[in-house]
Amino acid sequence: MSLTIVGSVAFDAIETPYGKTGKIIGGAGTYTALASSYFVDNPQLISVIGEDFPEEYLAMLRKHGICTDGIQRIDGKKTFFWSGRYHEDMNIRDTLATELNVLGEFDPVVPNDYQNTEYLMLGNLLPSVQRTVIERLHKRPKLIVMDTMNFWMNTMLDELLKTIRLVDVLVINDEEAKQLSGTKSLVKAAKMVLRMGPKHLIIKKGEHGAMLFSGGNIFYSPALPIEDVFDPTGAGDTFAGGFIGWLAKTDDISFENMKRAVVFGSAMASFTVEKFGTEHLQYLEKSEIRKRVINFSELVTFKMPPK
Amino acid sequence: MSLTIVGSVAFDAIETPYGKTGKIIGGAGTYTALASSYFVDNPQLISVIGEDFPEEYLAMLRKHGICTDGIQRIDGKKTFFWSGRYHEDMNIRDTLATELNVLGEFDPVVPNDYQNTEYLMLGNLLPSVQRTVIERLHKRPKLIVMDTMNFWMNTMLDELLKTIRLVDVLVINDEEAKQLSGTKSLVKAAKMVLRMGPKHLIIKKGEHGAMLFSGGNIFYSPALPIEDVFDPTGAGDTFAGGFIGWLAKTDDISFENMKRAVVFGSAMASFTVEKFGTEHLQYLEKSEIRKRVINFSELVTFKMPPK
Repeated sequence: MSLTIVGSVAFDAIETPYGKTGKIIGGAGTYTALASSYFVDNPQLISVIGEDFPEEYLAMLRKHGICTDGIQRIDGKKTFFWSGRYHEDMNIRDTLATELNVLGEFDPVVPNDYQNTEYLMLGNLLPSVQRTVIERLHKRPKLIVMDTMNFWMNTMLDELLKTIRLVDVLVINDEEAKQLSGTKSLVKAAKMVLRMGPKHLIIKKGEHGAMLFSGGNIFYSPALPIEDVFDPTGAGDTFAGGFIGWLAKTDDISFENMKRAVVFGSAMASFTVEKFGTEHLQYLEKSEIRKRVINFSELVTFKMPPK
Repeated sequence: MSLTIVGSVAFDAIETPYGKTGKIIGGAGTYTALASSYFVDNPQLISVIGEDFPEEYLAMLRKHGICTDGIQRIDGKKTFFWSGRYHEDMNIRDTLATELNVLGEFDPVVPNDYQNTEYLMLGNLLPSVQRTVIERLHKRPKLIVMDTMNFWMNTMLDELLKTIRLVDVLVINDEEAKQLSGTKSLVKAAKMVLRMGPKHLIIKKGEHGAMLFSGGNIFYSPALPIEDVFDPTGAGDTFAGGFIGWLAKTDDISFENMKRAVVFGSAMASFTVEKFGTEHLQYLEKSEIRKRVINFSELVTFKMPPK
């Protein structure tokens, strides 16, 4: 089924204990679209770039079947740029630079071809921009998935809650779930967030995996144990791309299939962190993905003893 | 099969955001033996208490089928006492008091009846005391499981390594695995610890579950999501009791069965944290345990999609 992704297409410069990159392609929209491209033939991207964004990067996206018609290029302006340095403990990072540039006035344009999209992924952005995209679609998609972050909880909670109310699946991390609900218990936090509008909640726990809450059901997908995490940048966005990519591919939004989608999201994220930036995500084989999902299954499977 | 447990039998006084207890029964040996008693008919405890330890506590242990012949009572001395206060984030606790008392000179006695034990659990204690128990058994048990903590890594690493070399399964938490190996990657840490002697390593990750490393195999058991953790005291010891209890009951130390043992250990620990001290562990039904193991299975089970 058709899939539209809204999210930043940007430059990143990353430093981890394993090395550092120059200015490379980054952005939530980039990671999410690339991940989804292994599941859906023609994911449609909505984003904004400046005049400095290289044509070859767009060509790379198109080579993955990603439709770039929804990416506006703003002349005379520069592309969003983020730079960060990860500590030995990669859960901690220092932001070295955040230059919003074109993202500061992002007014998303929905091309006509995107109008009948069935699956919509709202990458982490200003909540009002995410809402604008929903409003500019003439028909509500079958499933809307939304990513966000603590920054919007701190600076524009009302705006954020307005957007959260409109979506089907909210994806946040454990700290954000605690902040949004005001409780330390993740199970209670999930119940409270599910009362804010979304029917499903995914709580990402980094190296500890991800949990899916849906009605009274809970599914826990551990993260695949990885010997060396080279660069965690984009892991969450990749997860989202694998998650919604699988759902759009199978067009099945039952709880059983959402569990699989969480596992495919986790599998995709495990590739991303093994190399810098989008390096691994650009050159994956579908057989590698299936193999990794089998690894997930083996990691958690045990046989119940007879009674 | 026969199971012997070495560990402290003590007084605890616990404060959590949910309330506080007076002096109640505690100690690694207590939690481990109680947990194991749901799997094994007659777990044999080796420990030491002072003259102040109430007979009714011993009677409670015996009511669970636990053999207390290996518990020495030292006249004129007091029982080990620990007191702690947990923060809102229960991963953080302040130790308010540690009075070693009889534990300071613990010289473990192995009753004759314990000599043919097949399964041995070494609860967290001075590493030389743990080793003494191994040496005082005329026949090496089929499986020796050892718990320990960072304190011994900081204060007597050589002694600790000598004991680790002698055991089959080492149980530590994630921070301890990183400290013992000197690496931040859990997968690498596991490989290094497995080179120190044990054939199997369990890394406990608290609310994030537990991982079993064995040869090239990894198994990940998440922790059951619990709405309110009342008191985490004894969770690790309870885990150990469920783990070795299941193995002793089934007398099967294959990797497949060790996975089940990790799940049973996790299930038992999930009961302990729901009430203060040993309160829940004293009054469990076997049917509750099986039900919880089924919950574990449901939490992680997903169906692989067809190719």
